[in-house]
Amino acid sequence: MPETVDLIVAKRDGGRLADDDIRWLIAAHARGDVPDEQMSALLMAIYFRGLEPAELRTWTEAMVESGDRLELGSVPWPTVDKHSTGGVGDKVSLILAPLVASCGAAVPQLSGRGLGHTGGTLDKLESIPGWRAALPPEEMISVLRRIGCVICAAGPGLAPADRRLYALRDVTGTVESIPLIASSIMSKKIAEGTAALVLDVKVGSGAFMPDLERARRLAQTMVALGGEHGVRTSALLTTMDVPLGRAVGNAVEVEESVATLRGEGPADLVEVTLALAGQMLALAGLDADPAAALADGRALERFRAMIAAQGGALEAPLPRAAHAEAVAAPQGGWMQRLDARAVGVAAWRLGAGRARQEHPVDPAAGVLCLVKPGEQVERGQPILELRSNDADRIAGARQALDAAVEIGPQPPAERPLILERIGP
Amino acid sequence: MPETVDLIVAKRDGGRLADDDIRWLIAAHARGDVPDEQMSALLMAIYFRGLEPAELRTWTEAMVESGDRLELGSVPWPTVDKHSTGGVGDKVSLILAPLVASCGAAVPQLSGRGLGHTGGTLDKLESIPGWRAALPPEEMISVLRRIGCVICAAGPGLAPADRRLYALRDVTGTVESIPLIASSIMSKKIAEGTAALVLDVKVGSGAFMPDLERARRLAQTMVALGGEHGVRTSALLTTMDVPLGRAVGNAVEVEESVATLRGEGPADLVEVTLALAGQMLALAGLDADPAAALADGRALERFRAMIAAQGGALEAPLPRAAHAEAVAAPQGGWMQRLDARAVGVAAWRLGAGRARQEHPVDPAAGVLCLVKPGEQVERGQPILELRSNDADRIAGARQALDAAVEIGPQPPAERPLILERIGP
Repeated sequence: MPETVDLIVAKRDGGRLADDDIRWLIAAHARGDVPDEQMSALLMAIYFRGLEPAELRTWTEAMVESGDRLELGSVPWPTVDKHSTGGVGDKVSLILAPLVASCGAAVPQLSGRGLGHTGGTLDKLESIPGWRAALPPEEMISVLRRIGCVICAAGPGLAPADRRLYALRDVTGTVESIPLIASSIMSKKIAEGTAALVLDVKVGSGAFMPDLERARRLAQTMVALGGEHGVRTSALLTTMDVPLGRAVGNAVEVEESVATLRGEGPADLVEVTLALAGQMLALAGLDADPAAALADGRALERFRAMIAAQGGALEAPLPRAAHAEAVAAPQGGWMQRLDARAVGVAAWRLGAGRARQEHPVDPAAGVLCLVKPGEQVERGQPILELRSNDADRIAGARQALDAAVEIGPQPPAERPLILERIGP
Repeated sequence: MPETVDLIVAKRDGGRLADDDIRWLIAAHARGDVPDEQMSALLMAIYFRGLEPAELRTWTEAMVESGDRLELGSVPWPTVDKHSTGGVGDKVSLILAPLVASCGAAVPQLSGRGLGHTGGTLDKLESIPGWRAALPPEEMISVLRRIGCVICAAGPGLAPADRRLYALRDVTGTVESIPLIASSIMSKKIAEGTAALVLDVKVGSGAFMPDLERARRLAQTMVALGGEHGVRTSALLTTMDVPLGRAVGNAVEVEESVATLRGEGPADLVEVTLALAGQMLALAGLDADPAAALADGRALERFRAMIAAQGGALEAPLPRAAHAEAVAAPQGGWMQRLDARAVGVAAWRLGAGRARQEHPVDPAAGVLCLVKPGEQVERGQPILELRSNDADRIAGARQALDAAVEIGPQPPAERPLILERIGP
């Protein structure tokens, strides 16, 4: 048994941790034998010194081995999942899972709860009356075998070591480390048992990783990790400086997802969704046209079946906020910029997101982007709608948006949504 | 109340912490409101990013203010203390306190327990039958007023924030940070109430800080901190690549200290002690000759009074180890090198030191350096004597000394003991 402090010092001084030491550390921390104060010092040392590819591979493997690994061999279609590093208005998962399933693949989407500006995918879906996020593994596999897609909570048995590490990183300033992010995401996806995976790595003001170079490194790191653990993995780097679609929140994002599945989605959301669907189908070895599946209603039908299988009543009305207020355009012209981060902060202040894992979210709260960059607006015209069940929250949200909007005399330059593809 | 994680992230990213945030952090950690896992992540970030002088000043001040500050105004002599960063065979404090007191200053030496190769000053003195390290503040001041010197344990009321931080640093690989070392040492000395302070910063293989450049920076940092908090402070950088004197342990170091106070000390120990005494007397504004006080028995008399005031029976025999074995010279010639660190590790393995704060030390264990660099030796002649109450420990100690000794055909080059003075 190594002395933990010696391992911390070795990493602090730029050394490489031995495979056995990494396995011991992860297992001992997961069972409580390495205390949090030692692990957090190690995490900060890793923040500064990084992990070499071989260390990261073992670190990730040890996290997978801390729990169960799902066996999806009984699913009669090729399995492929998607993970997004998260952005403002990013409801792609809700559309993508049934869309790709309707094209012949199986999508086993196990999600966590967000700590972001809006809720995570599970919080969004929980705004549908009756919908249950928690499924035991057998039920999850059963839904997947019947419907071809499932979105549910990653159970406590999957990579439990990551659960402890993630909670610790969140309070110790060690979230933004590429190897720690990569191992956290990939350990859960590897344990989930999917054969293939597409990563949507967001870049821009509303992304977890604003900088292109770091986003690229994260994508490369995760693609390599997937390959090393037998998961065919590719990544798209996509723009996240403006909210994706028009709705930012929980119920409002479900509404927009359903509209998109009906073929009435906003152009940017449709473009990103189809690009990711194309990647997933390619990795699954399927030759199908996801645009057609969106147009002819097959994807929407699959979505309804998926929601119903988990008790969701889509025919029931979604929660509506008691209070709604508009933000008016301060001048006329073309909208140049609508800062994703500011809109995210506003949605969070309205109650759509959470600051602590255990906090609830307000399912009805959120922001509607009535006008988006590239569109024309008249002075005084409503450009944003703020919704909350707590009227006192609206002033703070308004404040967050103070410098978020730019309106000018010319249309803004076009910005590409899909920046790069990284993968085999 | 700031969010602790935001402060950790600010420091991690190279930012400067505000005075109020530093005060809040130290106080909140001391009372348990900031948990250890957050503080250890911050300490690791400080290890990498450092603290600016203004941050360090506030950090140190907050540690002082976490507890009591002694009031030595009733002591009728100028107060001056000494602190050593610690070395192998460093028993200087035992000699220096009564020596400087016998020259007209008052020495309030509050010590901690060592985690080093041998015990700390308190452990060494505790090998004297009956001697008590723990004195309430009133008794400490009373001894100081009667005798002119006192060596005792720093009570729990002095810089309690440092106690928690030190224990945390010890297990999280964040000991070796110059601002953290400096604030830990200086907060206790400032709280102790001494008007002046001389630092003995050791450099070399047996020192906590082997590298001259880092030792110099530590000394400069502490001298500046002292000045900022109203303690006149200077520092000597002294060599620590060979044990100081011939005795390394606890009782054996007391014996050597008494011999030195009798005027029969080894040359290197006498030289370092007189240099430090000269610095202390200069800071105290006294014009006295410490060499004379050593030669004429005044210092020894003061030592006896100080030990007796704390219950110590110097007339009783000191503990003697049950087992003693010699290490023989592998060849004849001049001893070139006797590695301080190796001798320290040997003493530690014999039982003279501790690995954990709560472990006891063996008062009789230690190493006697019968021959030192610069002296001639014949093949087979005993050069080291290993003492322990546990015969099983001797083989491990012998092993630690395998490469510690170098004997050559020529006398080695002279090495200076006092390297630099830093101070106002």
